[in-house]
Amino acid sequence: MKEIQSVKNQIIKEVKKFHQKKQRDVQKKYLLEGYHLVEEAVLAGATIDKVFIDQKGYELYNDWLNEQLVDCYLVSTEVLKALSELPTPQGIVALVDKQEQIVENFTGAWLLLDGVQDPGNVGTLIRTADAAGFSGVILGEGTADLYSSKVLRSLQGSHFHLPIIHRNLIEVIQQFKQAEIPVYGTELNQDALPYTKVTPRKDIALVLGNEGQGVSQDVLNLTDRNLYIPIYGQAESLNVGIAGGILMYHFVSDRNH
Amino acid sequence: MKEIQSVKNQIIKEVKKFHQKKQRDVQKKYLLEGYHLVEEAVLAGATIDKVFIDQKGYELYNDWLNEQLVDCYLVSTEVLKALSELPTPQGIVALVDKQEQIVENFTGAWLLLDGVQDPGNVGTLIRTADAAGFSGVILGEGTADLYSSKVLRSLQGSHFHLPIIHRNLIEVIQQFKQAEIPVYGTELNQDALPYTKVTPRKDIALVLGNEGQGVSQDVLNLTDRNLYIPIYGQAESLNVGIAGGILMYHFVSDRNH
Repeated sequence: MKEIQSVKNQIIKEVKKFHQKKQRDVQKKYLLEGYHLVEEAVLAGATIDKVFIDQKGYELYNDWLNEQLVDCYLVSTEVLKALSELPTPQGIVALVDKQEQIVENFTGAWLLLDGVQDPGNVGTLIRTADAAGFSGVILGEGTADLYSSKVLRSLQGSHFHLPIIHRNLIEVIQQFKQAEIPVYGTELNQDALPYTKVTPRKDIALVLGNEGQGVSQDVLNLTDRNLYIPIYGQAESLNVGIAGGILMYHFVSDRNH
Repeated sequence: MKEIQSVKNQIIKEVKKFHQKKQRDVQKKYLLEGYHLVEEAVLAGATIDKVFIDQKGYELYNDWLNEQLVDCYLVSTEVLKALSELPTPQGIVALVDKQEQIVENFTGAWLLLDGVQDPGNVGTLIRTADAAGFSGVILGEGTADLYSSKVLRSLQGSHFHLPIIHRNLIEVIQQFKQAEIPVYGTELNQDALPYTKVTPRKDIALVLGNEGQGVSQDVLNLTDRNLYIPIYGQAESLNVGIAGGILMYHFVSDRNH
């Protein structure tokens, strides 16, 4: 196995650039950390460009890596730390090709994110959509980058489980409407409908919005109904991840009978 | 107003000690940041020990602070930064007395946390319990400190809205059982009951557990029923905050009709 000891190595310098969204966008690759996630990437058929592994990781995963026939480097602790964006590096960092997601039509339940900015919220919402058996997630403009370290951390591999696509929400909502699939916005006011009044059904689109501003007015104007979750106590609002969890599980609750 | 320019000032050195849990536990005081939360503390009748404010905060909140008659210091940006634990200090840090919570009996819905370690999860769960109109929250051993900066940040003032007490969960569950209030544990396996099978009712106790280990076996053995949230997709689990949100809103969903 090739070895790299210095953080000044040219390959390391190049790969560190993928900490930046711009580089990920242009090259259509991203960094993935931890054995479990790298294994999921392989199982999902993702192309692994390079793998960097420290001595401890080498001892643990060497056999497995040999099987995968990927371009693999044994690196010093300093180098792995330089590549890692986790507080505690996991011994393995891989450069992975983004997978092109092709969605022909929107059957089933879809989650639409309109400017959700916090990476933890975006990751948790997608993971919850995965758990709830949603068909996919559509990321509108202003939503945190799917391939940032923080989103990947809270995603826990869910981007290998369901399609996640980038679209203009105004355009995509019109597609849902043409297909006669109801589109539900979320609005934190009493003009909206309490979510429990909506009967669960198979095909729906649910839009969640920015942490501070909520769903943008342009989008709210296009939705079929706007929903709210009643606040019974004194909290001013719910975290958008929690709100998403409550709504998504409401929409699939009939699967349980 | 008294002024402090140096981070080496004795008062600042003393107050910085409240970044440590031990100091908060012994002195029964904690640090609260941001005007909105300090104002909530005042409205909630909490005793404010000291307030530290920078020039910008002084211009914004001086009138209001004068009304409160608290021990207030105008400090340099450096001093405020030293006291703050936020990435972006909010111009005001207060040293606040913990409020003794006295709970006579457990009517209504109660959330019990059994070793929930992530401060963001603890804060979000309490904020959701507040939103869902729960009567209070009981923190068992191993749960993140309520008064840490990170918990306070995601709490968004909910600790002023509902009682939050520290108890041995084994003992407190026995109290619930004596009062004939059903206690629901959460377990991620098919031996447990899907949560939608449980009819919402006014008095309940809901136990959520550690991010990795779940609810401890000792506690699960004592509960009346253990519940799970079905996973319809490929995600391995739900975040505990999301799971808590889905369950809490299920238990109050009858209030909506």
